[in-house]
Amino acid sequence: MSEQAGSLKPCRVVRTGPVSIGGGDLVVMAGPCAVEDEMTLWEAAHAVRAAGAVVLRGGAYKPRTSPKAFQGLGEPGLAMLKRVAVGTGLATVTEVLDTRDVERVAEHADILQIGSRNMQNTALLKEVGRIKKPVLLKRGMSATVEEWLLAAEYILEAGNPDVILCERGIRTFETATRNTLDLSAVSLLKELSGLPVVVDPSHGTGRRSLVAPMSRAAVAAGADGLIIEVHPYPKAAACDGPQSLTPEEFSRLMLQVRKIKEAMLLLK
Amino acid sequence: MSEQAGSLKPCRVVRTGPVSIGGGDLVVMAGPCAVEDEMTLWEAAHAVRAAGAVVLRGGAYKPRTSPKAFQGLGEPGLAMLKRVAVGTGLATVTEVLDTRDVERVAEHADILQIGSRNMQNTALLKEVGRIKKPVLLKRGMSATVEEWLLAAEYILEAGNPDVILCERGIRTFETATRNTLDLSAVSLLKELSGLPVVVDPSHGTGRRSLVAPMSRAAVAAGADGLIIEVHPYPKAAACDGPQSLTPEEFSRLMLQVRKIKEAMLLLK
Amino acid sequence: MSEQAGSLKPCRVVRTGPVSIGGGDLVVMAGPCAVEDEMTLWEAAHAVRAAGAVVLRGGAYKPRTSPKAFQGLGEPGLAMLKRVAVGTGLATVTEVLDTRDVERVAEHADILQIGSRNMQNTALLKEVGRIKKPVLLKRGMSATVEEWLLAAEYILEAGNPDVILCERGIRTFETATRNTLDLSAVSLLKELSGLPVVVDPSHGTGRRSLVAPMSRAAVAAGADGLIIEVHPYPKAAACDGPQSLTPEEFSRLMLQVRKIKEAMLLLK
Amino acid sequence: MSEQAGSLKPCRVVRTGPVSIGGGDLVVMAGPCAVEDEMTLWEAAHAVRAAGAVVLRGGAYKPRTSPKAFQGLGEPGLAMLKRVAVGTGLATVTEVLDTRDVERVAEHADILQIGSRNMQNTALLKEVGRIKKPVLLKRGMSATVEEWLLAAEYILEAGNPDVILCERGIRTFETATRNTLDLSAVSLLKELSGLPVVVDPSHGTGRRSLVAPMSRAAVAAGADGLIIEVHPYPKAAACDGPQSLTPEEFSRLMLQVRKIKEAMLLLK
Repeated sequence: MSEQAGSLKPCRVVRTGPVSIGGGDLVVMAGPCAVEDEMTLWEAAHAVRAAGAVVLRGGAYKPRTSPKAFQGLGEPGLAMLKRVAVGTGLATVTEVLDTRDVERVAEHADILQIGSRNMQNTALLKEVGRIKKPVLLKRGMSATVEEWLLAAEYILEAGNPDVILCERGIRTFETATRNTLDLSAVSLLKELSGLPVVVDPSHGTGRRSLVAPMSRAAVAAGADGLIIEVHPYPKAAACDGPQSLTPEEFSRLMLQVRKIKEAMLLLK
Repeated sequence: MSEQAGSLKPCRVVRTGPVSIGGGDLVVMAGPCAVEDEMTLWEAAHAVRAAGAVVLRGGAYKPRTSPKAFQGLGEPGLAMLKRVAVGTGLATVTEVLDTRDVERVAEHADILQIGSRNMQNTALLKEVGRIKKPVLLKRGMSATVEEWLLAAEYILEAGNPDVILCERGIRTFETATRNTLDLSAVSLLKELSGLPVVVDPSHGTGRRSLVAPMSRAAVAAGADGLIIEVHPYPKAAACDGPQSLTPEEFSRLMLQVRKIKEAMLLLK
Repeated sequence: MSEQAGSLKPCRVVRTGPVSIGGGDLVVMAGPCAVEDEMTLWEAAHAVRAAGAVVLRGGAYKPRTSPKAFQGLGEPGLAMLKRVAVGTGLATVTEVLDTRDVERVAEHADILQIGSRNMQNTALLKEVGRIKKPVLLKRGMSATVEEWLLAAEYILEAGNPDVILCERGIRTFETATRNTLDLSAVSLLKELSGLPVVVDPSHGTGRRSLVAPMSRAAVAAGADGLIIEVHPYPKAAACDGPQSLTPEEFSRLMLQVRKIKEAMLLLK
Repeated sequence: MSEQAGSLKPCRVVRTGPVSIGGGDLVVMAGPCAVEDEMTLWEAAHAVRAAGAVVLRGGAYKPRTSPKAFQGLGEPGLAMLKRVAVGTGLATVTEVLDTRDVERVAEHADILQIGSRNMQNTALLKEVGRIKKPVLLKRGMSATVEEWLLAAEYILEAGNPDVILCERGIRTFETATRNTLDLSAVSLLKELSGLPVVVDPSHGTGRRSLVAPMSRAAVAAGADGLIIEVHPYPKAAACDGPQSLTPEEFSRLMLQVRKIKEAMLLLK
């Protein structure tokens, strides 16, 4: 890979409704790991919107390590996510797992997520390359930056230019954190591609106490956005409770990242 | 994970036609990385059969890192593989990449392979769990043994008991080999599950000179089989030339692994 | 490791002359990888001091991967470092490699560095535990946070309370960067120990273009300081040229990290 | 690194007394992790000798992760090891940790071990390069094969040609085993250097049940020897009990590896 820092590619701005990712604003996506029940989702959506998030996250199809873990609500979950997002004025991002579900998910959601486990599911990449909605492509657990960009190429080559890259931690020997968040990749990706980059410190660290410092660091590294797990009742969450923020913690985090973003704007 | 070595699970023997995997014989699967043209495939098939292989490998759908790399011949490749296998009296193993292709691949092939990149493609795992053919489940590049067994559970839970595990190397910091072949996993899997385990030293090392020693080591570690890339003209291979053996090298390898297998039988 | 974020240990402030590390100020250490010649060192020292660094770094004993690489000037290098530091009003940090050199290095330098390769050199840890100077303990390339803190314990147990931890990247499968800088470790260490933490983005990334963004991110993550390779003529550097900043680049970096530090102070 | 398998370097045979390592025989080194008390050591030594080991292993200086763990008996341990070895007709291998101890250890032991944590302790490498005894150089936990061979170069360059390389597992994401034993490295090292290679399946796996299969695999991969932890009472061992074999288990392992070695001799 080339060493010259000056060779910045022209930046792609990805738009969905009023939201622009990669255009200079810090875009925050937040919500529960999984769509579980509608009351909880309304509560989460109102809270994250009040704090400044513009995209609601929530999984209807969940790619769990064990077949016995909660697999998501499926289509009813998609409909629920859409209702709540429309009712709160948020855009949505949700994961798709199967080539046969791509069209259906694209009807309900604004941004389709390809999860880490499917980053090299080439059939799925080609399929989301054929739709007209933005795709959030999470980094595979052991994907190099080069392989990740080649996975993005599958989507771009199939005709969809609206790819958002999402750093969510890589697998290393370290066990104190769930994954090792690779923030160097953020600036490197901005050098090597023109695609927007968002960071997921919730999966990237797996520890509630590290979500705020890693969010600040991501913004300081130049990330275009953040995707954060927020749940009104983390202890009752169907998944990822230990890394979910309460609405209050999320509000405090938003204040912090805004201060860092303001400092970043002064650098230019 | 439990430490007691004595808790060996009852061994599952997976059968396809006259081939039994996990029943005590060393089963060797061999052939080119990709199905390219019929002449080459006939030549490879005759050669590997003569040397003692009983299953012909070859990809019709190829999950390549780059969208610009050869993606396989698709359905014509499947038909070609079947013709050659029937003509030479070999069983076949080939990869499936898309839930929508599972039925078609199952019509043409004897064993369906789930590749490393799709080990946690849960939609695909569930789909191959519904067919009546054995599934060769390759280990993901950064999958722990526990995650790998949970991926196997997806197939078993869906109703298909015929899962063969395939160790093919994990991703580590070492760059002298393409992957790090984890032979400890072979004996560990035999302890923790009753499923047959085969080893892929071609992808596991990525270096022709290491394929024979790692094949011998795999047999000494207790593997039930091997899957080896063999190509009549490695330099002209559409993929994985540097790790493919010539038919002559493969014959020598077969003599070596048979000697190790004989020694193993004397230990019981 | 405990999950509660609230259990912050009392912070140790490490002092050397007028410099306090861990006391709230951002402490920047900078200079060339190796002490090579006195003119270059004077030039580097004046430049980094003018930009705001308070500690001069430079190796007299170099732990190189190959025995044929430049091994450092040894004792004359130590003396040169001291002269230049005294002349410019900077404190110094330099590496010690051998138990037999600890006393001599402690006579010349203000802070002794234990490098990554020696993080588990227990004989050396015990020896620097007996001196009365601060020790900068770099993280081993494949050390977990827990092992790193246990290495620090060797120094603390031997009687030296003045340990500064230095995150410098861990070894992973990623090859686009020299190491993977683990900024999560910064906040985690602040939770788990009261020791000051500095970050080395030069070794942590190995790419000049990533040093500034990772320095900003380190400060946003809560680091107490930075250690940066600066060389007046990076192309002529005896080692680590590709990651060394010019004095001009370092000045710009200092402006950036100060802005981030100011934003951090507003959060409290 | 070059791909051609044919470029085998001339093999160095390392000798100590009647023991030749790298000369075609399978050399087995065995004994407890640490020298603890003389009765236990006598018992272990008699047992491993009866089963066919020719070198007694045992640590007098122990490089432990925590300063509170047992650090070894030091010089009295060295003397004890020597007495028992002489009394049973075994050679000895023991670790040295400090440049200041090299001469003393060399007076008592036949082979000096550089442990994983010190593989890049260049001061220590240079020091053992000046003695006239063989050095067993263990691979660092995250050392590439290339870095390992460069560490060996430090010893060779300093004038000591008698280096034995010891593969003992590398650090990866996998937690089911203590380390990931990299047997590909065995054949690769034989291609790239002429130095003898032994394998440590005890540290390499950390699980008693995997020691025998990995020993067989190591021999099948072409290893020149094995180094195995054997303790008469593993549950009472001061360290590494979970991976130590009883004398009975070790005897069975020796029968197995001899059968594999015989098969290997038939291949030539």
